[in-house]
Amino acid sequence: MKTKIVIIGAVALGPKVACRVRRLNPEADITLVDRDQLISYGGCGIPYYVGGDVSELEGLYSTSAHVLRDADFFKFAKGVDVRTQTEAVAIDRKAKTVALKHLPDGSVEDLPYDKLVLATGALPVVPPLRGVDFEGVSVVANLRHAEKIKQLVATGKVSRAVVIGGGAIGIEMAEALTDLWGVETTLVEMQRQLLPTALGEDMALILKNHMEAKEVRVMLNERVTRILGSPEKGVTGVLTETEAINCDLVILAVGVRPNTELARQAGLATGAWGGIIVDEGMRTSDPHIYAGGDCVEMTHLISGERIPMPLGSLANRQGRVIGTNLAGGNKARFKGTTGSFCVKVFEMGAATAGLTVGQARQAGFDPVYTVVAQADRAHFYPTQEMMVMKLIADRSTRRILGVEAVGPQGDAVKSRVDAVAALLPHQATVEDVSNLEVAYAPPFASAMDIVNSAANALENTLEGHHRPVDVIDFLNDFKSNGARVLDVRSNVQARPYIEKYGERWQNIPQEDLSKRLAEVPKDYPLYLLCGSGPRSYEAQLLLRSQGVDKTKNIQGGVMMLKSSDPAFPPAE
Amino acid sequence: MKTKIVIIGAVALGPKVACRVRRLNPEADITLVDRDQLISYGGCGIPYYVGGDVSELEGLYSTSAHVLRDADFFKFAKGVDVRTQTEAVAIDRKAKTVALKHLPDGSVEDLPYDKLVLATGALPVVPPLRGVDFEGVSVVANLRHAEKIKQLVATGKVSRAVVIGGGAIGIEMAEALTDLWGVETTLVEMQRQLLPTALGEDMALILKNHMEAKEVRVMLNERVTRILGSPEKGVTGVLTETEAINCDLVILAVGVRPNTELARQAGLATGAWGGIIVDEGMRTSDPHIYAGGDCVEMTHLISGERIPMPLGSLANRQGRVIGTNLAGGNKARFKGTTGSFCVKVFEMGAATAGLTVGQARQAGFDPVYTVVAQADRAHFYPTQEMMVMKLIADRSTRRILGVEAVGPQGDAVKSRVDAVAALLPHQATVEDVSNLEVAYAPPFASAMDIVNSAANALENTLEGHHRPVDVIDFLNDFKSNGARVLDVRSNVQARPYIEKYGERWQNIPQEDLSKRLAEVPKDYPLYLLCGSGPRSYEAQLLLRSQGVDKTKNIQGGVMMLKSSDPAFPPAE
Repeated sequence: MKTKIVIIGAVALGPKVACRVRRLNPEADITLVDRDQLISYGGCGIPYYVGGDVSELEGLYSTSAHVLRDADFFKFAKGVDVRTQTEAVAIDRKAKTVALKHLPDGSVEDLPYDKLVLATGALPVVPPLRGVDFEGVSVVANLRHAEKIKQLVATGKVSRAVVIGGGAIGIEMAEALTDLWGVETTLVEMQRQLLPTALGEDMALILKNHMEAKEVRVMLNERVTRILGSPEKGVTGVLTETEAINCDLVILAVGVRPNTELARQAGLATGAWGGIIVDEGMRTSDPHIYAGGDCVEMTHLISGERIPMPLGSLANRQGRVIGTNLAGGNKARFKGTTGSFCVKVFEMGAATAGLTVGQARQAGFDPVYTVVAQADRAHFYPTQEMMVMKLIADRSTRRILGVEAVGPQGDAVKSRVDAVAALLPHQATVEDVSNLEVAYAPPFASAMDIVNSAANALENTLEGHHRPVDVIDFLNDFKSNGARVLDVRSNVQARPYIEKYGERWQNIPQEDLSKRLAEVPKDYPLYLLCGSGPRSYEAQLLLRSQGVDKTKNIQGGVMMLKSSDPAFPPAE
Repeated sequence: MKTKIVIIGAVALGPKVACRVRRLNPEADITLVDRDQLISYGGCGIPYYVGGDVSELEGLYSTSAHVLRDADFFKFAKGVDVRTQTEAVAIDRKAKTVALKHLPDGSVEDLPYDKLVLATGALPVVPPLRGVDFEGVSVVANLRHAEKIKQLVATGKVSRAVVIGGGAIGIEMAEALTDLWGVETTLVEMQRQLLPTALGEDMALILKNHMEAKEVRVMLNERVTRILGSPEKGVTGVLTETEAINCDLVILAVGVRPNTELARQAGLATGAWGGIIVDEGMRTSDPHIYAGGDCVEMTHLISGERIPMPLGSLANRQGRVIGTNLAGGNKARFKGTTGSFCVKVFEMGAATAGLTVGQARQAGFDPVYTVVAQADRAHFYPTQEMMVMKLIADRSTRRILGVEAVGPQGDAVKSRVDAVAALLPHQATVEDVSNLEVAYAPPFASAMDIVNSAANALENTLEGHHRPVDVIDFLNDFKSNGARVLDVRSNVQARPYIEKYGERWQNIPQEDLSKRLAEVPKDYPLYLLCGSGPRSYEAQLLLRSQGVDKTKNIQGGVMMLKSSDPAFPPAE
């Protein structure tokens, strides 16, 4: 007898399960059900369609060989039966049937299954604001939204837009609107930084400044209280706690939540975040029902907590695991996520894995971290650009808890984070990253690469050799409390700063320091500064060996100062 | 009492040791000794200086803050005494002294040490050919060679060059000569492929074709027997086993060997490759003498064998370990190398880690591998380029033994290899790479990224689902034995191939295959082909389920055919 497999949801995970089962089991009877007519699309590509990088919507639901992934494609190329415009309205676990409703004509049917897969995805969170239903207000969840938004901007109807939410989708949409269409865009984020679940505040600040340099207005710590306009005229603006912003388009990008209504109605277990609970074989609390993708919770491999992690990449990998298990044996495993994430922000790339410092504290660790700025290839190689990396470890066990990186060459940024991320499930320590063997040639890396430098700096901090301070903390102390700086760069580099900041800014080049120790003030704390951090670290060691012990080294040096507060350095 | 530390050799490892010791121990008495006057330079940058990417020689011995790393710099900025133009001629291990000879005046001195570090590097192998001492014949080992070669080409004295050796330096020098200076360059390699210690023949073939497209003549399986010219006129050509090639410059790039004369004279243990033997703390057989960098052998973490691995990156990491150990405690460890390597070849990047298939066999493994071709970011993202990846595992244990990748976007290529390489010391299996969590966003990766696809394909091969054939084996069989192809791409794509190859080339698009099974020949073996491999894999599964069992899937599809033999596809 043929196994009957029914899959609810035909984006990302669903099609992956279907194809994997088919490849392993030519006999299986596979049905893929979706409410929509467009299926198997790359939802993560929507901002790039709106922004023009992807010119045709079909690009998002075609194969790499330019074949449309529609119902016919699945039928003939994949041997999978697809029912589009069909909603799964209920599961009868006892009878092992799913009640399906064909949306165009309202007809209903009970489809029997041997194994059921829930690939119901996530739903965009719509904030409970007056006006969210006005014309010109849209979430970014499926291709219909994409088409509608692009049509609005392409026909010149949008000159100003507000994006609500500073996560990846909010940032990508702000870039899409600004970069191609020249829409005057404001991004409003409730928390005090962009990407609050992915990056530390210092790293996120670099991205904020970059977005502002690209003419996106970024409002942090700001809450939208109401959407202005009328049902007739559509949206005309947004009201925040501090001001009214006129606009013709509002993008809601405040996050998603697992779509689990069907699962909960059927009595399947769900977790604290509302996602379906699955085991490592991706089985729900009913052994005949599997689930994966944006509708489930998975184990975070560092914190050990169960969280949703709505990413197409995880959905694809989980889909393969489910497909393998459905084809027989139930032996494939998906053990969890390290929280790997990356995003393009105009001409910068950011990548991260593991926990942020804040998340690490919440998870009960005692995080220690370092921030280093270094060229992303040999410093003498012409295409080199500065990259900033943050590495976080647990103080007592020295286990690596997280890594974050930001820089102009996104592939290079992601490269370092992916290499560290690969180690995270193996309980890697700081020493493992110190010796992490990334490939070396001058066009692609430094002999002592930034990943190794970051771990070395972190080890120096853990051993007490290095006493660093965050650039944000320094800036606060300098601006509010009159703190003083010893700049160990060259005279030429320091001079404009001395002109701007006067006697609070002292300069002794690091190579002269041993001869000019008498000039170093010993009676008050000193912030040490160089271009990116290593020379001021050497100065700190030298000063300490001479009894000058109240110094703090500004992590990432002038490089971090400039990216964190573009108004801080003297005008050039 | 101050510890007296003497370091022989002031490039890469030596300076790193000196600086690390100084940072941890402000009291140590550190002397760095080098035969040359130029020290602490980036030797790996030489081809980029010759090729013009680095415009000034100083760029290679300056810090990232543009300070020259000369003796004064080490004295004042680092607190390290440097003796340049000074040769270490003998070690008296009993007396704990090194005999130094000051080269300009011939004066000698015995310098006492508490701890000695050998950072004597490697020497370029000079093949025993008549004419190697002619003017215009040069190795590429230090900045003097770099200066001389650049001067020759920059003054227009070189219109034709021969590079002997197809390793990284040979390739980089061939690129440097061709790309900036338009020198007509021939690269001669004794073995049947470029980069024989780093890549499989199929991957290396892609690079060879790319070099040829960039107008470097590449001769494989070819031995230079003599250098032509005279002591008076200098070099005029090169004689190989098959022809005479006129040229004005010969670059010898046939490899390096550990420089261990001093160590051997002192009775320190050396290994099968002639490198100094060290333990994980980087100590030689004399506990007061450490060694690292190009003059030592280290453990290959996959094969378990001791090999030299002359890379500036390893030298730097080992240098830090030695410095830490010298400063006290001897607790830092360098466990070995995964053999990570990368190289830029004109507009391609190649990266590799672990063992090649041949090396894996020699080391006693039973290697199984896969080759996949896939876009290096979302296939709909405009900057995507095709990348080829080879993944190698041991048949019975499924342990990953090696990974190789080639593609036009070098950072993206290296990114994938570094992530897999990070897993190699952890005895990662195919399944670990299937689920390897690389960060995902369309501008940087695919939802099912090429690393995951490669592992999935390898798993399919190990499980017997996938029956692949190498493109090189296919080409041989097709050209010599009249083998036949079933092309499952579209009619439009297949038509020119049918026109070129006639009835040996049959076309049924994959999505029509289930309806046109009757047309598939069952009585002779068939090679299946699509654009890059996945559709022909699906065709293979479908055909097998219908009893057509003699098919082989061409790994990497048309993409690999084109890169392996540019003359094979029909003219466009």
